[in-house]
Amino acid sequence: MTSQESLDKFYTVIPAGGVGTRLWPLSRASAPKFLHDLTGSGTTLIRSTYERLAPLTGPRVMVVTGESHREAVRVQIPELDENDLVLESEPKDSAAAIGLAAAILHRRDPEIIMGSFAADQVIAPVEIFQQAVREAVATAATGRIVTIGITPTHPSTGFGYIRKGATLEVDGAPIEGAPHARDVAEFVEKPGQELAEKYVDSGEYLWNAGMFVAPVALLLDHLARAEPALYAGLTEIAAAWGTPEQAAVTARVWPELPKIAIDYAVAEPAAAAGDVAVIPGNFTWDDVGDFAAIARLNPAREQESMTVLGEKARVYSDQSSGVVVSDTQRVVALIGVENIVVVDTPDALLVTTTDHAQSVKQAVEALRAQGESDVL
Amino acid sequence: MTSQESLDKFYTVIPAGGVGTRLWPLSRASAPKFLHDLTGSGTTLIRSTYERLAPLTGPRVMVVTGESHREAVRVQIPELDENDLVLESEPKDSAAAIGLAAAILHRRDPEIIMGSFAADQVIAPVEIFQQAVREAVATAATGRIVTIGITPTHPSTGFGYIRKGATLEVDGAPIEGAPHARDVAEFVEKPGQELAEKYVDSGEYLWNAGMFVAPVALLLDHLARAEPALYAGLTEIAAAWGTPEQAAVTARVWPELPKIAIDYAVAEPAAAAGDVAVIPGNFTWDDVGDFAAIARLNPAREQESMTVLGEKARVYSDQSSGVVVSDTQRVVALIGVENIVVVDTPDALLVTTTDHAQSVKQAVEALRAQGESDVL
Repeated sequence: MTSQESLDKFYTVIPAGGVGTRLWPLSRASAPKFLHDLTGSGTTLIRSTYERLAPLTGPRVMVVTGESHREAVRVQIPELDENDLVLESEPKDSAAAIGLAAAILHRRDPEIIMGSFAADQVIAPVEIFQQAVREAVATAATGRIVTIGITPTHPSTGFGYIRKGATLEVDGAPIEGAPHARDVAEFVEKPGQELAEKYVDSGEYLWNAGMFVAPVALLLDHLARAEPALYAGLTEIAAAWGTPEQAAVTARVWPELPKIAIDYAVAEPAAAAGDVAVIPGNFTWDDVGDFAAIARLNPAREQESMTVLGEKARVYSDQSSGVVVSDTQRVVALIGVENIVVVDTPDALLVTTTDHAQSVKQAVEALRAQGESDVL
Repeated sequence: MTSQESLDKFYTVIPAGGVGTRLWPLSRASAPKFLHDLTGSGTTLIRSTYERLAPLTGPRVMVVTGESHREAVRVQIPELDENDLVLESEPKDSAAAIGLAAAILHRRDPEIIMGSFAADQVIAPVEIFQQAVREAVATAATGRIVTIGITPTHPSTGFGYIRKGATLEVDGAPIEGAPHARDVAEFVEKPGQELAEKYVDSGEYLWNAGMFVAPVALLLDHLARAEPALYAGLTEIAAAWGTPEQAAVTARVWPELPKIAIDYAVAEPAAAAGDVAVIPGNFTWDDVGDFAAIARLNPAREQESMTVLGEKARVYSDQSSGVVVSDTQRVVALIGVENIVVVDTPDALLVTTTDHAQSVKQAVEALRAQGESDVL
C-alpha cells in the first residue's frame, strides 16, 4: 500500500470532552476549553484542530462531544456531516468516546485508519505536525497502533512519557513514507522531577500527547480483548447507529458502560503485545492545562509585561506582569502585581498567580461544594 | 459666655467635595468617597459625619457640595433644610467652599460659630470627638479660630502637623469648658520619615485633620486680609443668596474665584497673628485615603485573612490575604495572592496590593489621558 493509498483510508476523530477546570472561570461546563480561543489567533481550539487535519482527511472528520455542545460544535465546524457528530449523553472517559467512533467507522468500512486528536491542544508549525500524521498513517497501514510522541522541551512532571525502541522496519527496510517510525519500548506514567530530567537528558523519551492513529479493526480487536464489556456495548450501539433504534439502544447501553481511559484500555495492552509504534513529533505542543500555559503561549508584546487576551479588554497595567483574560468590556487596572492571573467574566472573577495556576481546580471544587454551581 | 451659650451659636458645615481618586473604581466623580460605606457600618461616610455632629448642633447643619451630588446628599441627609444645601457649579478648593458657607451664615447671624468637618472621615469613639468639639466651640467663643488636632498613632508622612503651644488661659485661668485648649505654636507641612518620627516622639505635635471651629466674623476677617478678591466675591454671592439674583450672581462670580486651600487662606495667617488655638483630639481618626486604609479599618473576621466589603459579594479565598471591595454579585475567587486589593464594580476592576494603594491615583490619571473617562 502506498502512503497515498493509506491516507485515502484516513479518518480524523476529534474527541471534544473535558471542561478544563483549571481554566475556570473562562472555561466551564457551558463553554469548555475547546470552544475558546486561548492563543489570540482568532480561532477556537476545536476549529484550529479541524483546520490542522482537514488538509489530510478532507471531509472525513468525526467529532465526539457532549450533547449540550451540539450547536456550538456545528457553529465551529459547519463542514461537519450530521452523521459525523457523535453526542454523548454523559461523559464516559476516552475509551468509550473513541471506541464508539471506531465501532461506527468500522461498520462503514472496516479498512478505515482513524486518527484521534483532542480538540483542545495547541500545535505549531502545522506542516511539521501534518508530516508526522502522514508518517503515522503510513505506519498504521502496516498493522499497528501508532502514537505521535512529542520531543520534550523540558522535564515536565505533568505528562506521561514514551520510551522509543528500534527503528521500525518492514522486510528489513524502513516503512515507505514513515522513515522516523520507531517501536514503542514502553509507556511510563508521569514521573517525578528527577526521573523526568533523566528521561529528557537521555533523548530516548517522548511526551505522550494522547494522539494516535490506528486501523479501526486493530483498535477494536485490542479493545475486545482488554475490555470485553465495553467492546460489546459499543458494538451494540454502533449496530443501531443511524437506524430508528439508535436513540433507544444508546439510552439503554451508554449509561452502563465502564469508564476507562483509552491508554489503559488499548494503548498499553497493545504496546505489551508489540503492536504499537511511535512517530517522534518535532513540533511544539501544549495542552493549555492552566493559565500559566496561557501566559506562556501568549507572550506579552514588546515593551509590555502583561499579556492580554480578549478582544474588548481595556487593560491598564503599571509595575505589573502576567496575564489578563477578559470576557467583558470592563476596564481592568493592575498596579504592582507580578505574575498575576486575572480572568474577568460577566459572572465570575479569578485573581491568582501563574505559580498557583494548578490550584484553580481546587477552587472550582470548593465553589461547587459551597453551592455556587451557577458559575461553574 | 457659658459653654452652653456658645454651643447655642454653633453651626456645623460639612464640605463634601473631592472624589477620593485613590479609592477608584469604587469612588468616582459620580459616586465620590463620602457617598460610600467604607467601614462596613451600614452607613455612608457623610451620613456618619452628620450623625456625629447632630447631637451638638441639632438642625443647624449646612452641606457644601457639587451640583451633581444634590440628590444623593438629600437622600443621605433628609433632615437638611433646602437653604442649608450649598451647591458648587465647579470645585473651587476649600477656602471658597468654607468661605461661602461662612459668608452666608454671617448674614443670617454674625455671632454664629461655625465648625467645618469634612464629609469623608472616620472617627471613633464619637463621645470623645464630641467632647473635643465642645471644647473647640467654647474656645472659639473667646475669639479664636480653633483646630482639632489628632494625637498621632504613628509617624505618618501623609499629614501636616500642628505644634502645640502653651495651655490657653483667659484672665489667668483655663477657658471654661475647654481645659485642654492650647495655643498653636506653628503649622508644619507634611514631614519626611525622620522628622515625622521626631514629631511623634516629642509628644508636642498633633496631626492636622483640617477640622476647625471659628466665629464666622473672625474667619471672614482673616479671609478679607489674606485673600481680598476671594472675600469680595464670596460676600457678593452671599448678599444675593436666597434672593431672585442668586443664580445670576453665582454664575457670574463663582467661576472667577481663586482656588486656594483654607489652610493657606485663613489658618496659617491667623496662626501667625496668634489667633489660632488647638484642642488635642484623643480619638482615632482616619481620612480613608486609600484601599490600605480600608483594609486597616475593616479587619478580617477571625480565622479569615480576607476582608470583604460589599453586601452581595461572593468571595472564595485560598492562601490569600487583603481586601475585596465588591459592588457586584459576581463570584470572586482569590488563590495565592497576599495583601491583595480587589475592587470589583460593574464597569471597572482594580487589582493591586495594599503596598501600592497610593499608586491608584496615577492609574486614574493615566486612564483619563487614555480617554477612559466613562469609568472615572
